[in-house]
Amino acid sequence: MRRLKLILEYDGTHFAGFQKQSGKVRTVQGVLEEALFQLTGEKINVVGAGRTDSGVHALGQVVHFETSSTIPEDRFPAALNGHLPSDMAVLEAAAVNASFHARYDALKKKYCYLVFNSRKPVAIWRRHCYHFPVPLDLSAMKECAQVFVGEHDFTAFSAVGSSVKSTVRHVFSMNIEKKGEWIRFISIANGFLYKMVRLMVGTLLEVGRGKLSPAQVKHILEEGKRGHGGPTVPPQGLYLVKVYYQADEEVNKGVCLDSGLPIP
Amino acid sequence: MRRLKLILEYDGTHFAGFQKQSGKVRTVQGVLEEALFQLTGEKINVVGAGRTDSGVHALGQVVHFETSSTIPEDRFPAALNGHLPSDMAVLEAAAVNASFHARYDALKKKYCYLVFNSRKPVAIWRRHCYHFPVPLDLSAMKECAQVFVGEHDFTAFSAVGSSVKSTVRHVFSMNIEKKGEWIRFISIANGFLYKMVRLMVGTLLEVGRGKLSPAQVKHILEEGKRGHGGPTVPPQGLYLVKVYYQADEEVNKGVCLDSGLPIP
Repeated sequence: MRRLKLILEYDGTHFAGFQKQSGKVRTVQGVLEEALFQLTGEKINVVGAGRTDSGVHALGQVVHFETSSTIPEDRFPAALNGHLPSDMAVLEAAAVNASFHARYDALKKKYCYLVFNSRKPVAIWRRHCYHFPVPLDLSAMKECAQVFVGEHDFTAFSAVGSSVKSTVRHVFSMNIEKKGEWIRFISIANGFLYKMVRLMVGTLLEVGRGKLSPAQVKHILEEGKRGHGGPTVPPQGLYLVKVYYQADEEVNKGVCLDSGLPIP
Repeated sequence: MRRLKLILEYDGTHFAGFQKQSGKVRTVQGVLEEALFQLTGEKINVVGAGRTDSGVHALGQVVHFETSSTIPEDRFPAALNGHLPSDMAVLEAAAVNASFHARYDALKKKYCYLVFNSRKPVAIWRRHCYHFPVPLDLSAMKECAQVFVGEHDFTAFSAVGSSVKSTVRHVFSMNIEKKGEWIRFISIANGFLYKMVRLMVGTLLEVGRGKLSPAQVKHILEEGKRGHGGPTVPPQGLYLVKVYYQADEEVNKGVCLDSGLPIP
């Protein structure tokens, strides 16, 4: 037996989230384990770095699992992609030591949230962004984004539904970039609570439209009561971009800041 | 009665092209006319600037039609969007004089073709680009692109299936832009023959991988025989970006060069 680590891209549109569920629900874990069974003949249980919600996309989800397959790592992505549907793809595979754990060993995660900020509707990218038609005060949003940076108890920006030991997380960065009518929220933290990114972004949008001030958001964070911030923005704008396992990994590298899809 | 001009965006994925067909086939024209009927109660026949093929997207398709509806132009997009499915949207509406014709009055059209040029697979954007995994010689492609510029008989880069008076077209520009693993082909012409953009791009990709030289492509164009260039690239990479009706319209403006969708 050996342990493999995979980096996965998937379009969350037609998945009921990452985690396998009973019944006929289509999940990332379920589809991946089925493909692994077709490839190896083994009933493999995969462990993911983050349990993305229904509709949330991933450009760099990481999973690990045990296999007795002898397929070389460099051939593994192509071999497994042959059994995966078109909305999921293995980008990389690597052998890791038996102690590696995709979730417990993750030091940092990068999420992006994509907003189409225009009165105009959006059709082509409707499943990959959140259409927010109200004009936004970008400088107020950027000022407020810094409220989240640092080590805080993020209870006020979490949803009930996951049992975590601690609600304290360290947010290393929350950057906001605007390009034309597109706005990206990019956050890196040592971990995120359930729906934390979508609640932070929903709150920043309230600040951008003048319904909340950075000072109020600071108070909401310190008070630590749920439901006082902005709404949870929808899942189709959210992307798990990268999971970091080494302290020295360059956090400014990665799909999020390096590349842009040039829409015609 | 008055004549209206609409600018339309649609995701071509689930449309069997623009043109209405008999039977239950879902087409852009059919869906649009059905929405117009729901809004106005009139059996309206729309005329499109370009008949995009099955799977081809549009960021700026233009249509015209006659209506007795008294809905003001500025309210028309929102009113009609209320009856349209999420993969089609009206971006703009304007009243035009009775002689305006979306197809005959079009002076120029801009198409873009989007290629994901990487050995890595693509999942999230699979329906909005063409995945081409072979390394490409961009400078050879850029050199060859200039072969298409100017007034030529493009028979060699057209497919049988449409009856046109002349096969001569004036290509004003064929630009190639690279950003990370993404390559955009942007062409503006006074018109394009059936499958002409997809055949030019398919040929440029053959040049990029070293299977054809710019000189050979020049010869194929001059010889004017079909089937000697590269293959027709698939429809999901193609976007009708803009239709021009005024000679003085700034051709370098428009979605294509102005904005980019920053993928997270």
